[in-house]
Amino acid sequence: MVTKLALLGAGRIGKVHAKAITTDSRAQLVAVVDAMAGAAEAIAREAQCKVSTIDEVLADKTIDAVIICTPTNTHADLIERFARAGKAIFCEKPVDLDVARAEACAKVVEETGAKVMLGFNRRFDPHFQAVHKAIEDGRIGKVEMVTITSRDPGPPPAEYIKVSGGIFRDMTIHDFDMARFLLGEEVESVFATGSVLVNPEIGALGDFDSASIILTTKSGRQAIISNSRRATYGYDQRIEVHGSLGSAAAENQRPVSIEIANAEGYTRPPLHDFFMTRYTAAYAAEITAFIDSIENNVAPSPSIKDGLVALKLADAALKSTASKAAVKIG
Amino acid sequence: MVTKLALLGAGRIGKVHAKAITTDSRAQLVAVVDAMAGAAEAIAREAQCKVSTIDEVLADKTIDAVIICTPTNTHADLIERFARAGKAIFCEKPVDLDVARAEACAKVVEETGAKVMLGFNRRFDPHFQAVHKAIEDGRIGKVEMVTITSRDPGPPPAEYIKVSGGIFRDMTIHDFDMARFLLGEEVESVFATGSVLVNPEIGALGDFDSASIILTTKSGRQAIISNSRRATYGYDQRIEVHGSLGSAAAENQRPVSIEIANAEGYTRPPLHDFFMTRYTAAYAAEITAFIDSIENNVAPSPSIKDGLVALKLADAALKSTASKAAVKIG
Amino acid sequence: MVTKLALLGAGRIGKVHAKAITTDSRAQLVAVVDAMAGAAEAIAREAQCKVSTIDEVLADKTIDAVIICTPTNTHADLIERFARAGKAIFCEKPVDLDVARAEACAKVVEETGAKVMLGFNRRFDPHFQAVHKAIEDGRIGKVEMVTITSRDPGPPPAEYIKVSGGIFRDMTIHDFDMARFLLGEEVESVFATGSVLVNPEIGALGDFDSASIILTTKSGRQAIISNSRRATYGYDQRIEVHGSLGSAAAENQRPVSIEIANAEGYTRPPLHDFFMTRYTAAYAAEITAFIDSIENNVAPSPSIKDGLVALKLADAALKSTASKAAVKIG
Amino acid sequence: MVTKLALLGAGRIGKVHAKAITTDSRAQLVAVVDAMAGAAEAIAREAQCKVSTIDEVLADKTIDAVIICTPTNTHADLIERFARAGKAIFCEKPVDLDVARAEACAKVVEETGAKVMLGFNRRFDPHFQAVHKAIEDGRIGKVEMVTITSRDPGPPPAEYIKVSGGIFRDMTIHDFDMARFLLGEEVESVFATGSVLVNPEIGALGDFDSASIILTTKSGRQAIISNSRRATYGYDQRIEVHGSLGSAAAENQRPVSIEIANAEGYTRPPLHDFFMTRYTAAYAAEITAFIDSIENNVAPSPSIKDGLVALKLADAALKSTASKAAVKIG
Repeated sequence: MVTKLALLGAGRIGKVHAKAITTDSRAQLVAVVDAMAGAAEAIAREAQCKVSTIDEVLADKTIDAVIICTPTNTHADLIERFARAGKAIFCEKPVDLDVARAEACAKVVEETGAKVMLGFNRRFDPHFQAVHKAIEDGRIGKVEMVTITSRDPGPPPAEYIKVSGGIFRDMTIHDFDMARFLLGEEVESVFATGSVLVNPEIGALGDFDSASIILTTKSGRQAIISNSRRATYGYDQRIEVHGSLGSAAAENQRPVSIEIANAEGYTRPPLHDFFMTRYTAAYAAEITAFIDSIENNVAPSPSIKDGLVALKLADAALKSTASKAAVKIG
Repeated sequence: MVTKLALLGAGRIGKVHAKAITTDSRAQLVAVVDAMAGAAEAIAREAQCKVSTIDEVLADKTIDAVIICTPTNTHADLIERFARAGKAIFCEKPVDLDVARAEACAKVVEETGAKVMLGFNRRFDPHFQAVHKAIEDGRIGKVEMVTITSRDPGPPPAEYIKVSGGIFRDMTIHDFDMARFLLGEEVESVFATGSVLVNPEIGALGDFDSASIILTTKSGRQAIISNSRRATYGYDQRIEVHGSLGSAAAENQRPVSIEIANAEGYTRPPLHDFFMTRYTAAYAAEITAFIDSIENNVAPSPSIKDGLVALKLADAALKSTASKAAVKIG
Repeated sequence: MVTKLALLGAGRIGKVHAKAITTDSRAQLVAVVDAMAGAAEAIAREAQCKVSTIDEVLADKTIDAVIICTPTNTHADLIERFARAGKAIFCEKPVDLDVARAEACAKVVEETGAKVMLGFNRRFDPHFQAVHKAIEDGRIGKVEMVTITSRDPGPPPAEYIKVSGGIFRDMTIHDFDMARFLLGEEVESVFATGSVLVNPEIGALGDFDSASIILTTKSGRQAIISNSRRATYGYDQRIEVHGSLGSAAAENQRPVSIEIANAEGYTRPPLHDFFMTRYTAAYAAEITAFIDSIENNVAPSPSIKDGLVALKLADAALKSTASKAAVKIG
Repeated sequence: MVTKLALLGAGRIGKVHAKAITTDSRAQLVAVVDAMAGAAEAIAREAQCKVSTIDEVLADKTIDAVIICTPTNTHADLIERFARAGKAIFCEKPVDLDVARAEACAKVVEETGAKVMLGFNRRFDPHFQAVHKAIEDGRIGKVEMVTITSRDPGPPPAEYIKVSGGIFRDMTIHDFDMARFLLGEEVESVFATGSVLVNPEIGALGDFDSASIILTTKSGRQAIISNSRRATYGYDQRIEVHGSLGSAAAENQRPVSIEIANAEGYTRPPLHDFFMTRYTAAYAAEITAFIDSIENNVAPSPSIKDGLVALKLADAALKSTASKAAVKIG
């Protein structure tokens, strides 16, 4: 059986998913939709599929599932429409920038019983998966402290910042999800501090470019997240979990891992330049998990609820920066 | 010229300093004082010097300086007495568990003009020094975010916890000093969270064994500190500084750095077992800096003021765990 | 333009190439040939192409090129037939186990002007490529000493050993090619020593399972190769080049690069299990280079001559183990 | 009990041993001898001992042992004289550049029953010791292949080369001893190749500056040694042992192990600058082993026989470069 997919949104992340789809022989991209015809056509040509419209995809009984990569403000609407149309749905994070809107959407998903998977791709990174597995296998005992370092190579343009929902909803949201994935217990409290150290323009837009966050759970487990919108040495993505019996860590990845030694010392090349190259394997495994959930008719994970919780943590972080106090969750 | 030193306190850390003194040919240990005669004698024998008393050392004009390694509750008194006696003073941290008492002591030091150096040994670790130098040399640009991971191999006995002043004044105080050393700007605000994850006995004594702390400075620089009283893999001591042009990190140290590969993977030995082995070079360099300050007649660093500030940060951290809010530093 | 390819040989390495072809959108696998119908069908099904015969492929004007993955003793014949048929040819190493036969084949290739590329896949590994580029960019100065460590995870079955031509022609041949790639000068002399340390059965078949080889060039550059048919920790593939200005090295690769720390130490997972996983990127880049040479109508590299030279080095190594002396290369 | 030592030779290596002696409280340096009064005085002042002469030391019943660090051509004579005088002897390698002379000396040692330890300091390096212990503990199974990389930071002056006995007797001799230490079986055959790649002046003196050597044992174990007189990145000293169950390696050491990341990549500082800093711990452990052998009245190791065997391997290596064939060891 082949699962037929339509791609909604042919931008940067849409291309990433289109490519990921080619790695699973059970998946076939059959249609691409984008407001910009050229973008849709480019992907369609490469994938040897057709350019289509939202309505056509909705109406097409042969299409099993959609991959939503459109702008954030369309996510909730599209999820609702395709949930009602009985399609399986993969949606890029976040569900919406507004918690209430996201909750309403989640309710529709629940009512329709639609399969909705949220695009927290990092859960599928083989290195992070291996850390998770080490925890599951009991190799580090009871989880106590999680440390997540997450830094972009460089800040996005102001246009992007404006509609991003701010660093916590846009960037840290991945780390909130990763913290939950690793902590093994729900987050109870969030403290966050943000600064503008990288680019004053970001501050002018009311956002931060540097942030430190502490999460705590009921039993006292702690997670630390360190974010920056700029790392000269590449896309800095590390996790470390400290437990009662030991520690497990996933180090940074680089495209080539040579080392050159000379009078100045030993030098290894910079890291991957961004998520498209760093998380290639994760995007492929993510699509595979989505296809698995469709083929085996099981609920996909991470779910829309996971998306909702991460969003609430982001909101709490933002509140915390204003109150300078820890914010309780739910 | 040889600087003649008396060692006050012949316990675990006293032994460390006695050994460190032997590495600087300008320094000579001439007397050891301890309430337990046996402890003093053991060091005196090894160092080929005499066992003495506080009063004798105070009265001995040939003794230039004292190394105070007695219990914390005697530090302030001893500093004041030896300051008035005109001796140079090296004192283990903290000055006192009580800020007011420590401030009063600092005032005496100021009035007498005594040379007082505080035992923040980690500033002298060659690896941390190299990170500091990289900052000074401008190699990572403007400092933005400091990350300090500091975990003991195992929790101290309950008897120690009782008189320790709590994790922030006993353990994190080193990290507070290190953060200040690396941030290059005074800390303005402290948020801390603590849990009991390692040993319930520690909780019963009203202390924490696991803590996460965020420090911020006026310009928005951030420091994160992660503390645990237990790390199965050894004494975990790492620093990382993220700046506008790059990042500098000092990794963990181990006594032997071999790697054994087999079907289970590639294994390197655990880290140093504790500070006595991890910071051997730091203790030697620290004594050398103390002797330098005496010989060159300059103010030693870190000073008693540095000790005071670190103590205030520890107090603020403790307050923050109760208020669950960031605490402003006076 | 799409280059249409036929795959001859649907065994282990045939599958690797079939998969590699899917990564280049300019290449299309249109036919698979194998004496075992089932093997051919399995690949054909996956690639959505037809099962065919040698004669059909020879006769099919629409097929541009062949990928030869059949048993070694058929390579020279197939190269000659397809060279005469005007197809571009990619052939797995070696051309033949017999130098004279390989030379006769190379002559046919020369006469027909056929494009023939030899399957020295390691030249295309991104890490080894980066080392090669560091040399080309002058970052380590003049090359002086090359060190190649090349160890298989485990010995092949006796049936394979029997037809392999021996360790030098089967396994070290890759390292001979790599040494030539990195030395930047032709090898003038070969000394080799071989032992049976892994499996006596290999010795009973007149072969070695452990070998050390020294190559020298005219100007005195040296290469060392260390081979074993067994490494419990995975597929051990390292190169290091020492030059007048510095050194460049490519370390081993592993599927996941996490590290778990506990009381036993710090452990990273074993290496890749063998060439299919270790050299995935290399196989893809190799096919891309082959397609490039066809599209741009330039001579492919490594050429059949490169295959011939590596074979001569293998023969010299074998001779050296008997004479216990260095063997000069013609 | 304190063992009283006299140091013969106050040059570079003499200073190293004088310092090492201070780390063992059972050892006391009581006399220093050198043809250059100034050199002897400098060490004597630091060690607070007297300057003396060979004859005085020979006659002094209170002196237990001598550390011979004089020029190589005096070693055999001094060993014989002090052996006859009943002193324990630590002598820097080699015993002599001439095998016959070294053998005659070893005979005297045997006849007198003197304790003679040879200065193969690397056996005492904690990292190499840990590799050796891993072998002894059976962690890598049966030893099969040893790889030793040994490169000096820069070539010695021509004056030194002239009296050095050539690269094999001067530099590789340490690696021959290390190979024996790790192989666990006597070397049966030596193949060596040498070139002049670093400095033509070295070639003009009839010596090599770059060498590759293969050693084999009776059961077929193999060792590879790679030597260069120049490594821009510091003193390159690595060992790796491949066995039936796994592999054990000791990596290079550096004075500070920080890492700086920026747009050019991740850079760690160069290695130690030479043996004085690289092998500080080894020199201390070596003296401790020597004192142990005196105190416990057991034969020291490595012995003068170990020195003799290493010298024979060096001679064989030199012969091999001329004959271009493996040389059998008696």
